[in-house]
Amino acid sequence: MTIGDELLYGQVIDTNSAFMGQELGKIGLRVRQISSVSDRADEIVAALDQARQRAQVVLITGGLGPTKDDLTKHVLARYFGTELVLHEPTLRHVEEIFQRFNRPMLDVNRQQALVPANCEVLHNAVGTAPGMWFSDQGTIFVSMPGVPFEMKRLMTDHVLPRLQALFHIAPIEHLVVMTAGLGESFLAQKIEDWEDALPANIKLAYLPSFGAVRLRLTGSDDGQPNLRGRMLALLPVLRERIGEYIFAEEETTLEAAIGRLLLARNLTIGTAESCTGGLVAHRLTSVAGSSAYFRGSIVAYHNDIKQEELGVQAATLAQFGAVSEATVREMAEGARRRLGVDVAVATSGIAGPTGATDTKQVGTVCLAYADGTQTISREYVLDRGRALNVEYAAQSVLTLLRQQLAQENKSGVVIASEAKQSVLFSAPNPIM
Amino acid sequence: MTIGDELLYGQVIDTNSAFMGQELGKIGLRVRQISSVSDRADEIVAALDQARQRAQVVLITGGLGPTKDDLTKHVLARYFGTELVLHEPTLRHVEEIFQRFNRPMLDVNRQQALVPANCEVLHNAVGTAPGMWFSDQGTIFVSMPGVPFEMKRLMTDHVLPRLQALFHIAPIEHLVVMTAGLGESFLAQKIEDWEDALPANIKLAYLPSFGAVRLRLTGSDDGQPNLRGRMLALLPVLRERIGEYIFAEEETTLEAAIGRLLLARNLTIGTAESCTGGLVAHRLTSVAGSSAYFRGSIVAYHNDIKQEELGVQAATLAQFGAVSEATVREMAEGARRRLGVDVAVATSGIAGPTGATDTKQVGTVCLAYADGTQTISREYVLDRGRALNVEYAAQSVLTLLRQQLAQENKSGVVIASEAKQSVLFSAPNPIM
Repeated sequence: MTIGDELLYGQVIDTNSAFMGQELGKIGLRVRQISSVSDRADEIVAALDQARQRAQVVLITGGLGPTKDDLTKHVLARYFGTELVLHEPTLRHVEEIFQRFNRPMLDVNRQQALVPANCEVLHNAVGTAPGMWFSDQGTIFVSMPGVPFEMKRLMTDHVLPRLQALFHIAPIEHLVVMTAGLGESFLAQKIEDWEDALPANIKLAYLPSFGAVRLRLTGSDDGQPNLRGRMLALLPVLRERIGEYIFAEEETTLEAAIGRLLLARNLTIGTAESCTGGLVAHRLTSVAGSSAYFRGSIVAYHNDIKQEELGVQAATLAQFGAVSEATVREMAEGARRRLGVDVAVATSGIAGPTGATDTKQVGTVCLAYADGTQTISREYVLDRGRALNVEYAAQSVLTLLRQQLAQENKSGVVIASEAKQSVLFSAPNPIM
Repeated sequence: MTIGDELLYGQVIDTNSAFMGQELGKIGLRVRQISSVSDRADEIVAALDQARQRAQVVLITGGLGPTKDDLTKHVLARYFGTELVLHEPTLRHVEEIFQRFNRPMLDVNRQQALVPANCEVLHNAVGTAPGMWFSDQGTIFVSMPGVPFEMKRLMTDHVLPRLQALFHIAPIEHLVVMTAGLGESFLAQKIEDWEDALPANIKLAYLPSFGAVRLRLTGSDDGQPNLRGRMLALLPVLRERIGEYIFAEEETTLEAAIGRLLLARNLTIGTAESCTGGLVAHRLTSVAGSSAYFRGSIVAYHNDIKQEELGVQAATLAQFGAVSEATVREMAEGARRRLGVDVAVATSGIAGPTGATDTKQVGTVCLAYADGTQTISREYVLDRGRALNVEYAAQSVLTLLRQQLAQENKSGVVIASEAKQSVLFSAPNPIM
């Protein structure tokens, strides 16, 4: 249950419920309903009454701030027929926070230490509003602040461990396999019989996000020993079937996986970008520590810059156009030389909504990878509108980059992967 | 009411409810509750029963797909005691869609044209699952697909106009003023008396998003003529008080507003980026038509690139370090020359989590603007973690850029704005 008018009117999107749902699912609890309600006391009470009828545990966020529209703990005190009392350890914690930031403490801040008399206080290590745990006629209610990082800290520190203990939840094991370069339905086809043969206590979930699919195996206790070991034993078949699309066997990003490959091979990288306008560089540098392998980029939107900074030949531009495999190959090779890097990738495309030529339609993107011994290029036609075309182009060139780095890493031999080109964007789902 | 297990377990974040809440708020309807429920028939029915007790209108999305876990219309037919019947116009529409994409049509696709006998069908121009409008014992239920762009189209084409007509909602007027560069609470302070003096039928909402605050004036009918004109007459005072932070008087982005200023002044732009790693270029090029003024960028992560590509002096790097106003000024000036642009902005910083030096802490970012007649620089210390530090640095340099372009545009005279520096990041709210 999330509380606040700002949620009802879409001024804030309720990401708290999504986080709580993810975490509850991981420990094997079933989520019955998510409700977002207004800041009005009578409507909060009505929602509490309904929630306790459908669930054993009601997690509540929001309405614990210091201002007058923050009603939650007052409503809860009245709902449980009790009153607010001062919680000394919380008061000292709030005082410490204000001292640390050297801010004057107002009476409203002091009131953060008032809690309903019947609650157990959950220490909020990262904020002034404490969590509150209530047990009332067989139902657990937990009230947490709406600030996402405070809620997350309270969930992790207190709420999830307590729920696991309270409900004697059998240990659940998770394995995550991250893939990129093939849509959900195509992946499913390739591993259909493997999935059908999974033991009853091990479930597979496909979690697609933009241009990537996370596979999550969830194993529940079947009374036999070494659940995790038996789950790990399922992976070799998966690697055999879809190994070329797997970029990690843990939660991570494609750009972080690329960073690890570059570090392992002691290679430096740079980019030459036209249609992606710097997004590929931004993603590569979003990884902490990327300065160890990322040197720089040339964003060459205008053809002058492609020629002057990247050494693309005027003849190439004249003959094939800026959006062509020929141009993007020269861009990647030019970036290698110009930035003094081992590996470079390049993009050029017509992001849209305008810019089509006689021979190239809006959404045409060309990508290239160059490492000094070889240059590989691709051409795709996308049709998702400007912003998504740019996102897909960046995701695709990073996918190409990772596949090349991984292949060379394994065998020293480059395996041409032209055959994959046709399926990369043929997934009918808008989430590739 | 949004339907689907994927919402309960956070595999998909419920943005549909946020959109519906925004649109309902705009036409003056009060949103009572948002509920997300599972794919189970009995739980959908329980939620319908509770929803009709608190609201006159229940909007439902999800569960209208062609697969067997898509239960919504079956549940609704049973809930209303009716049966599914074939809707001929919908069948023809579905057939047309499959013909257009040259795909074989399966029986499950044909079933998209089955609807409960008591509904009015709402034509879905952009998908195969129609919307359904039910009126049952004084309550309106509307079922729409969960695919966001289909739901949005149905809301705009059918649902919102029908609701406005049905409830005789008085016309509501909205004015939006977009600001960047000053936090919500500081803005509020500057316009407090103006806000307090607003007529009773005109409300102001502060809608903060990352590094920007949207001000929305909502005027409801007071029986007097020319509501919109009277609202527009309120803006001059707002412009006088906070004009330097206003970048548009309509819904738009900061980068789009910058694009308009560049086009109006016939100026070209490029960027030189270290800590932002290409994000500033990516944002500038996210605007359709940006190739008319954006030429390119140098992402200079490594100091070699700062020297070779941007002409930063070795002595400057040695004396002041890469993260310094001196370096970032030379970067901006170098980008102007190198990229052949009229205006350039530059960033350099320690995004974190590591990289602090003896004199510079993590989160230090330096920004510069150069236009040939002047170079302006800023230094801030941010503390929001790597990803947000990068986002804030990009937002800040775009804010600096816009302010400079706007000032010069108005008067031809550059007004030094050093005094503002201290407040830009002092807002205590994580959403600046």
